[in-house]
Amino acid sequence: MRAYKADALPEATLETLVAAAQSAATSSNMQTWSVVAVTRPDTKAALAAVAARQAHIEQCPLFLVWVADLSRLERVGIAAERRLEALPYLETFLVAAMDAAIAAQNAAVAAESMGLATVYIGALRNDVEQVASLLGLPVGAVAVTGLCVGYADEGVPAIVKPRLPQSVVLHPERYGSAAESGGVAAYNRALEAFSAAAERSPYSWTDRVMSRMGQVAALSGRDCLRDALVRLGFPLR
Amino acid sequence: MRAYKADALPEATLETLVAAAQSAATSSNMQTWSVVAVTRPDTKAALAAVAARQAHIEQCPLFLVWVADLSRLERVGIAAERRLEALPYLETFLVAAMDAAIAAQNAAVAAESMGLATVYIGALRNDVEQVASLLGLPVGAVAVTGLCVGYADEGVPAIVKPRLPQSVVLHPERYGSAAESGGVAAYNRALEAFSAAAERSPYSWTDRVMSRMGQVAALSGRDCLRDALVRLGFPLR
Repeated sequence: MRAYKADALPEATLETLVAAAQSAATSSNMQTWSVVAVTRPDTKAALAAVAARQAHIEQCPLFLVWVADLSRLERVGIAAERRLEALPYLETFLVAAMDAAIAAQNAAVAAESMGLATVYIGALRNDVEQVASLLGLPVGAVAVTGLCVGYADEGVPAIVKPRLPQSVVLHPERYGSAAESGGVAAYNRALEAFSAAAERSPYSWTDRVMSRMGQVAALSGRDCLRDALVRLGFPLR
Repeated sequence: MRAYKADALPEATLETLVAAAQSAATSSNMQTWSVVAVTRPDTKAALAAVAARQAHIEQCPLFLVWVADLSRLERVGIAAERRLEALPYLETFLVAAMDAAIAAQNAAVAAESMGLATVYIGALRNDVEQVASLLGLPVGAVAVTGLCVGYADEGVPAIVKPRLPQSVVLHPERYGSAAESGGVAAYNRALEAFSAAAERSPYSWTDRVMSRMGQVAALSGRDCLRDALVRLGFPLR
């Protein structure tokens, strides 16, 4: 949902969403994520500037920034006077990012169950160092995605976009791609029909893949993510 | 839940779980994940051998392997006779892994809503190349986590483990860690009381962090994940 009303959220909504997020599984109970709850208009505007000026970041009453956070473990190690050898590895960053995603999705499902709408904002990764600066993130913490939360503006039609046929993504027992080209062809037609009706400019999934993945420029700065992560304290060893 | 009955799942459970997974958000509609549904005892045994012989992988009737999958986009590019410049980047791998996690969590929530139990198996990453070989994954596809699905064995008590206080993970407007040490101290006590009662051997969260993160050996081979990913077709540029 990319259009929100300005209506405030019911009391304790944030706490409920974070409780749902914390109820998700977390690898080895390491809880390597944090969430920054942004409601201040100036901060939302600054974050929207990072994220290709998506207006819904400023519209929605609550913008959650999900943080892959190894800094907390680092502080626990310092308090215990122990160096944590496993922290600098790509594996540990990946766990933190995936656990943040799993937590965020539990919050998103909880929000929808409460009659709220959401949209992820991956474009925060266009400039993770700027986001870290805006939110005061310590070394070893990085925003991996945002999530707008609010009441949908019913004036803007919202239609569920079709997905790839299940036969393309689900593989019984072993991976197979024999039936894939037929499934993708059918999906190209389905998405063309959907986009013609919903967005008045028809495109196929193949078109969309080309425009998002064909050129490095479409990464909007995220082609520098690896170097930025190193500077933010993730050696990705 | 780490103890399962052998009971079969109701008809169409798998299709329902994958429908839930596909209903989750996916970055730019790229749908960069696949899932392999494993029910064959020999395959489950071989996967359990990778994952520190966790018995529940063999016990549960359905073991879902969630795959960060850029190979499908690669095939779409080949069919369109276009090279996809954005595929080799760390950003694109991260999107695939996070989207796989978000999809998996939707399936996990759907499973719980149907009276089923689940547990994630991150230990598949102990040897992602062996998992790729067992499941026939193509270049550009890697298993990022597993998920056991089945009926909980009620004979084994399952108590919800306490989490860090919300004040430690939730940051209003900006990140702050001023209140953290008190929250972690309280959580150390809570987890000691929990583990003494539930596992008959008390440990604090600090203890747990040290045992999981203190030494590289605790990564159980995942310290080689970066090199393994490169060999599996993810240059992580």
